[in-house]
Amino acid sequence: MRTKAAVALAAGKPLEIMDVNLEGPKAGEVLVEIKATGICHTDEFTLSGADPEGLFPAILGHEGAGVVLEVGDGVTSLKPGDHVIPLYTPECRECEYCLHPKTNLCQAIRSTQGRGVMPDGTSRFSMLDGTPILHYMGCSTFSNHTVLPEIALAKIRPDAPFDKVCYIGCGVTTGIGAVINTAKVEIGSRAIVFGLGGIGLNVIQGLRLAGADQIVGVDLNPDKVPMAERFGMTHFVNPSEVEGDLVPYLVDLTKGGADYTFDATGNVQVMRAALECAHKGWGESIIIGVAPAGAEIATRPFQLVTGRVWRGTAFGGARGRTDVPKIVDWYMDGKIEIDPMITHTMPLEDINKGFDLMHEGKSIRSVVVY
Amino acid sequence: MRTKAAVALAAGKPLEIMDVNLEGPKAGEVLVEIKATGICHTDEFTLSGADPEGLFPAILGHEGAGVVLEVGDGVTSLKPGDHVIPLYTPECRECEYCLHPKTNLCQAIRSTQGRGVMPDGTSRFSMLDGTPILHYMGCSTFSNHTVLPEIALAKIRPDAPFDKVCYIGCGVTTGIGAVINTAKVEIGSRAIVFGLGGIGLNVIQGLRLAGADQIVGVDLNPDKVPMAERFGMTHFVNPSEVEGDLVPYLVDLTKGGADYTFDATGNVQVMRAALECAHKGWGESIIIGVAPAGAEIATRPFQLVTGRVWRGTAFGGARGRTDVPKIVDWYMDGKIEIDPMITHTMPLEDINKGFDLMHEGKSIRSVVVY
Ligand SMILES: [Zn+2]
Ligand SMILES: [Zn+2]
Ligand SMILES: [Zn+2]
Ligand SMILES: [Zn+2]
Repeated sequence: MRTKAAVALAAGKPLEIMDVNLEGPKAGEVLVEIKATGICHTDEFTLSGADPEGLFPAILGHEGAGVVLEVGDGVTSLKPGDHVIPLYTPECRECEYCLHPKTNLCQAIRSTQGRGVMPDGTSRFSMLDGTPILHYMGCSTFSNHTVLPEIALAKIRPDAPFDKVCYIGCGVTTGIGAVINTAKVEIGSRAIVFGLGGIGLNVIQGLRLAGADQIVGVDLNPDKVPMAERFGMTHFVNPSEVEGDLVPYLVDLTKGGADYTFDATGNVQVMRAALECAHKGWGESIIIGVAPAGAEIATRPFQLVTGRVWRGTAFGGARGRTDVPKIVDWYMDGKIEIDPMITHTMPLEDINKGFDLMHEGKSIRSVVVY
Repeated sequence: MRTKAAVALAAGKPLEIMDVNLEGPKAGEVLVEIKATGICHTDEFTLSGADPEGLFPAILGHEGAGVVLEVGDGVTSLKPGDHVIPLYTPECRECEYCLHPKTNLCQAIRSTQGRGVMPDGTSRFSMLDGTPILHYMGCSTFSNHTVLPEIALAKIRPDAPFDKVCYIGCGVTTGIGAVINTAKVEIGSRAIVFGLGGIGLNVIQGLRLAGADQIVGVDLNPDKVPMAERFGMTHFVNPSEVEGDLVPYLVDLTKGGADYTFDATGNVQVMRAALECAHKGWGESIIIGVAPAGAEIATRPFQLVTGRVWRGTAFGGARGRTDVPKIVDWYMDGKIEIDPMITHTMPLEDINKGFDLMHEGKSIRSVVVY
């Protein structure tokens, strides 16, 4: 079939809207009509050329929602008409990782996904002249239609709005999951969140959902305060306004250090501060942000020997097919909010404007609606 | 009263055996006759002058066992004749730390202990000319008699031999506790232990006790292999004999990385290797060794984001009054071994020979028997 897509032809160039060929689903695969997709910093990271593993030409996008149109041989958990969210972290429920209680990093299709192809080693996308176009993060939601492995699709309820729940395919789950799955925050905890962008806001609402008593947000931009407060932030700290060192200030504010701290900045110096303002004896610090290639975190081992724990999280520790439908329910039940974070919507033709809004810091999330 | 002690008069000098004055126990304190004490690297660290918090003159020693002679006002949990092990990490069962489920770092007497005095701010020890002598780690087991707070004494069964169970006051509990309390190693786990000194051997026997399937020991000295095997090591790796990088070699040996890794070297480069050979998705690395002042650990945050966890442990995460008596039982029941690790015993007069044996790498543990 033919479909319309925004294609990344090369690093550093705007996406080009064009018709592309899409092969139907092979065994174990599913054809999905994407109804909406968010534009994420990770797409920008790859498009900019900063991602050392970025491949071109490719169809980016990994934060979508849509409807199953057709299933390949052997697909049993999905049928045409089902509403789905694509998963860049799949859940095969059979690999060593899926069967381990401590991780969500399913490895079933990892190597092919990393090479931009389906599990059989080939791409379903091509230019009209036949040149193959690579998939991206196994999703390629910047195409109106895409093909994914069955294990990379979460089936969701049919009454959830595509243009909101698409964000659950990445940022919402990453932030809320970091709190609930990775940190396992207890009721009454004190927490500090570094970075009040989209991920940080979702960490904050995850903390509210988990019953945290104190939710400190740290950001250099005070314009982010009203939205962060709306999502549950109880205290704001602007490092540029703190006299002296930030870490002792935050330790004092949290009565000895936070039970949980979260880095949503990707800055390795901030990651260190986040660890060191965790409470002696039991504080845990969770790295969510993606650091520049080659950057390293450091601290004195004494910080760990005296009881702090350093962790990271990917896709919020969520097992997508199991957890994403639950998060959709939480949204539909009003337990979490998404609507205020979707600051802009646009047709696919204007997708590059969505990237511009991100660069300019004007959007929390832009969503393309097909 | 008068008692005999080995006194550290100044950094870098041998201990001096002398008679000293010891005041009786004040309220909440206990007078203990020390029957045996181990000589530990931590004593050496302070005696050498490398410990930036070291104070002199002091009576070192923190790894003892003895008998209660007298109790001060208000002491309810101990009486004369009770057998006890001094605890440099006390357990008050009342402070914020003792009441928190994730830590053993009781803070009840931390500041006075750090200053070498009892909780009332004074020392019980003095020279015969009246010059005060400081306590050390709240224990000062290099004195035939010493005074400790009630909360810093674990009551143990009376049939346990002092010259063996004194080691439970430090190295045994540190190593075994790192496995059981901090890592919480599950049956069937794969583990790597860096450093096959006394702590490493105790980590190894902790792993055996916890039912680990693979216990890899890493050390530059192959002379340590027979003893490590006796305690449960299943594989030995000498980094000097590995071609190429050590981390991928160990990842391969453990089929993808170890479930748990332990640093018992204090070397920050080894700590990094220990983290990085933990299994993607769920591997945890525990720092036990004490690094030189100012040394820092580092890694790429990707190591944590892909699921590894970095922790540390102090006194094996053990709550001394609760856990030490259990470990004594394990020893008496034959679940763990201590005897082969006590390679030398000596009278107090020869304590400096014990330090020499440690320097020369000839002992695992020297024990002074009073
Ligand atoms: Zn994303
Ligand atoms: Zn899997
Ligand atoms: Zn010790
Ligand atoms: Zn306490």
